[in-house]
Amino acid sequence: MMQKNEYEQRVQLFNEKLPQYLPDGTPETLYKAVQHLPFAGGKRLRPVLAMLACESLGCDKNNTIPFGAALEIMHNFTLVHDDIMDKSTLRRNLPTVHIEFGEQTAILAGDFLFAKSFSAMHQLNVNHDVFKQLDFDLINCILEICEGQQLDVEFEKRKIVSEEEYLQMIQKKTAVLFRLATRGGAIIANATPEQVQALTDYGLNLGLAFQIWDDYLDLSSDEETLGKDIGNDIRNGKKTLIAVHALEHATGENKQLLEKIFGNQNASESEVKQILQLFRELQSVDYAKQTAIHYNNTAKKALDLLEDSHAKQLLVEIADFAIQREK
Amino acid sequence: MMQKNEYEQRVQLFNEKLPQYLPDGTPETLYKAVQHLPFAGGKRLRPVLAMLACESLGCDKNNTIPFGAALEIMHNFTLVHDDIMDKSTLRRNLPTVHIEFGEQTAILAGDFLFAKSFSAMHQLNVNHDVFKQLDFDLINCILEICEGQQLDVEFEKRKIVSEEEYLQMIQKKTAVLFRLATRGGAIIANATPEQVQALTDYGLNLGLAFQIWDDYLDLSSDEETLGKDIGNDIRNGKKTLIAVHALEHATGENKQLLEKIFGNQNASESEVKQILQLFRELQSVDYAKQTAIHYNNTAKKALDLLEDSHAKQLLVEIADFAIQREK
Repeated sequence: MMQKNEYEQRVQLFNEKLPQYLPDGTPETLYKAVQHLPFAGGKRLRPVLAMLACESLGCDKNNTIPFGAALEIMHNFTLVHDDIMDKSTLRRNLPTVHIEFGEQTAILAGDFLFAKSFSAMHQLNVNHDVFKQLDFDLINCILEICEGQQLDVEFEKRKIVSEEEYLQMIQKKTAVLFRLATRGGAIIANATPEQVQALTDYGLNLGLAFQIWDDYLDLSSDEETLGKDIGNDIRNGKKTLIAVHALEHATGENKQLLEKIFGNQNASESEVKQILQLFRELQSVDYAKQTAIHYNNTAKKALDLLEDSHAKQLLVEIADFAIQREK
Repeated sequence: MMQKNEYEQRVQLFNEKLPQYLPDGTPETLYKAVQHLPFAGGKRLRPVLAMLACESLGCDKNNTIPFGAALEIMHNFTLVHDDIMDKSTLRRNLPTVHIEFGEQTAILAGDFLFAKSFSAMHQLNVNHDVFKQLDFDLINCILEICEGQQLDVEFEKRKIVSEEEYLQMIQKKTAVLFRLATRGGAIIANATPEQVQALTDYGLNLGLAFQIWDDYLDLSSDEETLGKDIGNDIRNGKKTLIAVHALEHATGENKQLLEKIFGNQNASESEVKQILQLFRELQSVDYAKQTAIHYNNTAKKALDLLEDSHAKQLLVEIADFAIQREK
């Protein structure tokens, strides 16, 4: 992606620091389960976004590392519990935590990561008001993520979900943590309220673009590229923007086909492919792509308020990457 | 129990305040799942202990309420996730959260309660240092609880567990939250280090006595009295102090009987009763009772350092209640 070195440099800096936030301990099995996913890599988008937001305001990226660790650990906590809920078996090309360590330990490992995220916050070297604000923002972020996850679960059981409901769901489920990453980076840099708002808007819209693109990728790539169970979304009746659009626009035979297969746990491989084909025919895949591009543009526009800088340029490139990546 | 009015008064005060820490919201199902257990009652021991610790140092009990809410909500979070892990069906004479709302929503409801516990902390009206200390203590408390739960899970699969290992497990799983209740109440009251230590020791030993007594009750009362699945502990091979003692002391035929039935998921009702009978014959039930009494005495002794007060007297009575209660 983009200026690979610039991004990877920050990932490397973060990866060097992360182990100190998740050290070894006993019982060993629990600690291995806790480390399994965070140490398996990942894009580290949230900590890098926090660094760049901070840097775009002329502040040292190192100041954000405990905050970035809190976000990354929290993100990993949500993945561990999501994978249990979705019965996913693969993540980052590895068995998911509950597959590797059993469901009991996976629930505990998630809870442990949750607590460790707040431990990381206590490593922040900021004044009392900043700490309280970031800590409170992080708490509210998780509350919204739980709400978003619950909506996601409920939407799978519903026949029709409006685009507005879908957007509210992904905002809570995904975008709020992106929003907090750049917002927090700005707050740590002692930004003006306008600057905080600009980076808050950037993060939120980036998160929306990112999640829509993620749903798009799930339906447009093969298992090998993505390291995820493909077809699951079709069989679970997952209300992605693509599905929401298709369900709204399908008529006649297409509508019947969707009703028969979409959300049917026993759908065959070839039926799943029929649905993927239908999504294309109804222009739903293209619609999702265009919507992701729209949020990408909105994200970039929010940055106009900031003075030009190297970090700002990288934030623009990350927004573009969000809707170009293939995994 | 004891001076019922005095205890119930404080429970009532707490119960009046609790709903503001767990208000309604959407998605409705999630919020109902979140409220299900905390609003179903319970002894409210942790918030009352925090009040009494604070009062015993001449401080207003109302100051501890947000902290007590954080502890009570955290306690309920652990119960929601435990019940999933243990596949328990009943709690406080109601269906458990995962039985009532499904496992996905129960995992989320637990996570939500976890975050709400930290929200409650932000309502505390204390100075920065006190907030940071209590918040950090709470985080470490949960980390220990996760470790304790993991040990509990692992011990079920092991043949033999030493008494020392058992005590370490229940200290982490249960006693640390009692310890934090009275310790936190003391810190909120701006206690001296010696007073903080005395109330920390009281809470820890009370927690140990409480958990040992809980295990004892599980094996000595019927399902109706306790509102829990009885026999589960035998079939799951749960390493209570009673079981630890019996496994250490059984010989010959008794040993064979234990090895055959204890931890056997398919054990019949009459086989479970045989094991209960064996626990009595080996004096294991009595040993657990004596050990609970020992920790009860240690807890009360820790209070010697404090000046006499009405609140101190109530703390003594709670310690005695911990090893006299029948549910």
